[in-house]
Amino acid sequence: MKPAPSVLALSGGVGGAKLALGLQRVLPPGELAVLVNTGDDFTHLGLRICPDLDTVLYTLAGVVHPKQGWGRDAETFGFMDELRRQGGPDWFLLGDRDLVLHVERTRRLAAGERLTQITAALAQRFGVPTLLLPMADSEVASLLDTDAGPLEFQHYFVRLRCEPRVRSLAFAGAAQARPPEELATVLRSSALRAIVITPSNPFLSIDPLLAVPGLRAALRAARVPVVAVSPLIGGRAVKGPTAKIMGELGLAADTASIARHYAGLIDGLVVDGSDAAEAHALGLPFAVTGTLMRNDDDRERVAHTALQLADRLAARVAADHGSIAADAARA
Amino acid sequence: MKPAPSVLALSGGVGGAKLALGLQRVLPPGELAVLVNTGDDFTHLGLRICPDLDTVLYTLAGVVHPKQGWGRDAETFGFMDELRRQGGPDWFLLGDRDLVLHVERTRRLAAGERLTQITAALAQRFGVPTLLLPMADSEVASLLDTDAGPLEFQHYFVRLRCEPRVRSLAFAGAAQARPPEELATVLRSSALRAIVITPSNPFLSIDPLLAVPGLRAALRAARVPVVAVSPLIGGRAVKGPTAKIMGELGLAADTASIARHYAGLIDGLVVDGSDAAEAHALGLPFAVTGTLMRNDDDRERVAHTALQLADRLAARVAADHGSIAADAARA
Repeated sequence: MKPAPSVLALSGGVGGAKLALGLQRVLPPGELAVLVNTGDDFTHLGLRICPDLDTVLYTLAGVVHPKQGWGRDAETFGFMDELRRQGGPDWFLLGDRDLVLHVERTRRLAAGERLTQITAALAQRFGVPTLLLPMADSEVASLLDTDAGPLEFQHYFVRLRCEPRVRSLAFAGAAQARPPEELATVLRSSALRAIVITPSNPFLSIDPLLAVPGLRAALRAARVPVVAVSPLIGGRAVKGPTAKIMGELGLAADTASIARHYAGLIDGLVVDGSDAAEAHALGLPFAVTGTLMRNDDDRERVAHTALQLADRLAARVAADHGSIAADAARA
Repeated sequence: MKPAPSVLALSGGVGGAKLALGLQRVLPPGELAVLVNTGDDFTHLGLRICPDLDTVLYTLAGVVHPKQGWGRDAETFGFMDELRRQGGPDWFLLGDRDLVLHVERTRRLAAGERLTQITAALAQRFGVPTLLLPMADSEVASLLDTDAGPLEFQHYFVRLRCEPRVRSLAFAGAAQARPPEELATVLRSSALRAIVITPSNPFLSIDPLLAVPGLRAALRAARVPVVAVSPLIGGRAVKGPTAKIMGELGLAADTASIARHYAGLIDGLVVDGSDAAEAHALGLPFAVTGTLMRNDDDRERVAHTALQLADRLAARVAADHGSIAADAARA
């Protein structure tokens, strides 16, 4: 029998995938589940592309491009060269090896399979022991209102390299989306011990997840600690536009903003050493470690820190849930 | 204004494409139209693949693999390597550059475009001055009944390397298919001077075309000479299973069998020098040249020979049609 996951991670792309790999490395095989943002997904050249799912898959399979943190190692670009030569759209890079995933996923979706099933089958092809779950089987599209007009995510993120100023975000299709049934199974399992929000972009990568109706409540209902790893290190993002977007949305790019953003959802926060002083003022349980993940030792250390923080909070969370349940019973 | 085609060629893959290239080289740009077999088409990995259309396109664009006669020159196989590594079906070779065509065609078909429109757009991408027409916009599938059971074309041709013995052929979907309207325009044009059946396999490549209802009658109704180039050289096929299949279908692999096969459709036959003696006994106008096409000089020579034979027969064909028309008027 397959072990039930003891840890559920919430992840976007590169940064989240690094911590997911750390968690996979410190947990016994099969004990990690990762719920992945699909708000970045789009249809390009008729192919359904799920960038965050692919980044997590490649990272957990050990075949991710080591420098980039996304895409394949040992990649070739014959398709892309030819597409460019034929005058096709060349702003979204598609490697020849990477294409296998998009073609296979598109074929299976057209055949009526759910994205959750397809993702599981692809993970199996790559020998990944972790349960990969898309946040929903139906399509959700992260849309940005910017000073360059409304933009679909990949157009903002890749084509325009995050240059436009963001005014607001919306998640089209989120209201109709439902978390996959496979997630409910994970959350209901008595094996579950912690939920970890990885240091992916809270606005672009984690918010789409939380926009799926019922998801936030389902996470809380699991009665296990929810801990987040802050995506900021000394007020800066490691990679990507987290700090830039926070500024554009009128938020200070600091740990307090992150804590406020996740208020009501998280029980604790892991922060980088450079933010330890600030964390003391949050009134929220926290743990400190170096959160920059350059190698597997770093990834394992951050994973351990997050799990230890969760374990430290387990009794209190269970008690809180008890009193909430008691409150509910009294009401 | 674009010139109206003066020559219509009927073609399958490799052999037909070589003569189509010869015709394109000897005719002014835009004066050639090629009607291409789509009975070989299939859906593989969710992609719509049209091997004969692609072979003709690549050949006319000058980017075909020079040794193979199909597929792309300067091709790479990152996709295929990865597909194999992931345990996907690897019997049908898909190059990285070649994939661009399949992905683009599949996308456009899904968007509701007709194969004829898509093919024209792809030909334009490649700068091909010739009008490429699929034999039909709807799907037709060549099916072989063999001693290894019923087989779809590509499974017979590629996966099983033509090894099974063929008992009979059928063209699924042919009864519902219609030639594209663009073909009718070519056939009705006063610019049309000749119809050339290329030396593609008469059973596997030309018969599917002729199975489309109305096509045979439309070719005759054009009142221009129809000449075929025999696919046999001294009783052997240059490439592919023509002679093998003729034997399996109980036909002698000779010029007389080819002439009988096209009886009622063709007005003349181009044969190789090695079959000249046999041709004299056919009671059919013929021309002789070396039909093995190793280089562009060969291709141009065979093209010239076919067109000269057609020109030689033009007056007689017009007169025959006149007497047929007169017969019809009398009846």
